[in-house]
Amino acid sequence: MRIITISREFGSGGRELGKRLAEALDVPFYDKEILFAIAKEGNYDENYVEQVLQRGLTPNYLPTFGHTFALGPDPVMQNEIRIMGLQQHIIENLAQKGDCVIVGRTSGIILEKYRPLKIFVYADMASRLARCRLRGDDVKTLSDRELQKKIQQIDEGRARHQKLFSDKKWGQKDNYHLCVNTTGIEIEAVVPAVKEYALAWFTQQEL
Amino acid sequence: MRIITISREFGSGGRELGKRLAEALDVPFYDKEILFAIAKEGNYDENYVEQVLQRGLTPNYLPTFGHTFALGPDPVMQNEIRIMGLQQHIIENLAQKGDCVIVGRTSGIILEKYRPLKIFVYADMASRLARCRLRGDDVKTLSDRELQKKIQQIDEGRARHQKLFSDKKWGQKDNYHLCVNTTGIEIEAVVPAVKEYALAWFTQQEL
Repeated sequence: MRIITISREFGSGGRELGKRLAEALDVPFYDKEILFAIAKEGNYDENYVEQVLQRGLTPNYLPTFGHTFALGPDPVMQNEIRIMGLQQHIIENLAQKGDCVIVGRTSGIILEKYRPLKIFVYADMASRLARCRLRGDDVKTLSDRELQKKIQQIDEGRARHQKLFSDKKWGQKDNYHLCVNTTGIEIEAVVPAVKEYALAWFTQQEL
Repeated sequence: MRIITISREFGSGGRELGKRLAEALDVPFYDKEILFAIAKEGNYDENYVEQVLQRGLTPNYLPTFGHTFALGPDPVMQNEIRIMGLQQHIIENLAQKGDCVIVGRTSGIILEKYRPLKIFVYADMASRLARCRLRGDDVKTLSDRELQKKIQQIDEGRARHQKLFSDKKWGQKDNYHLCVNTTGIEIEAVVPAVKEYALAWFTQQEL
């Protein structure tokens, strides 16, 4: 099984790299599909699922002064945990279908046992801002400073989310096989090289 | 000018990757050549130069108790600084000759103005231990624990050395364009892909 997981900084073009890589390798690409499947399976609103997955779990810690309070059942938290569980379940099912490229959703951690090729995509802030502006997504009304804050918050959410599942730190190069800095380059231009790297890497694993 | 600088964890095979990449690109490869040139130019023993470059500068801080001592001229320190200066000078001269691959010696920092492609090569400790054993270099008498300590010391020296020149932290992925994890792979197998990546990257820079 040749599974490639892509983790990426927001605005680094990691999603595009994953999509193009899947096309080049002629295998399925999974991103929002996972989110839609969770919404369907759990009967949730898609936006709600996206929100939960983006910010990670939000344990309801009360500030205490020398005491800890026993909290009653927390419906928000229960939904969030259920969504995380569904995500895990759906990613596992997708992986079992065969070779694929999966972007985000801590899939590198969830699919560890399949020994995926783990790629991390990143870029400097200027380049990420520019890429967000180009894509246009929802950012026209934001100043650079606001957009930068949003980018950082999203990445912090991703790091926090991964921390729930793993002691492997999000974005730390040791936890990936290849880290690609997209600052100042067109994603499309490097896809053939990344594909070649992936093929060589899988061949080595299968020796 | 297409200059590739390789930084690497000790035992990760970064030197081999650099050498093979230079061969594949048909450009000169510089590693020990720099050291030899420093020794010749400065009339130093090669082993001494290697030692100094490996451990980085060792400012002679005396432990003081509430006082600082004004230190007189320190001949050891002066030699070390001279060696660093020669290194810088020689690397600059090599780069001006044309396209090349340079391994180590903070060349990524020294040659910043040439906008080199900066690659970082790393691997997990087990894989680095195995690679050192394979290469055989001087390690036969060391236990795994001793060898691991040696590896860590060498890398700490590299990080410390870079810190003298730059606020860009050694080994931090943001300071490189591509980070290659060689755990469990033969260097030779990934060289064509890294070459292709390099060519695509330079083409992008030159647009």
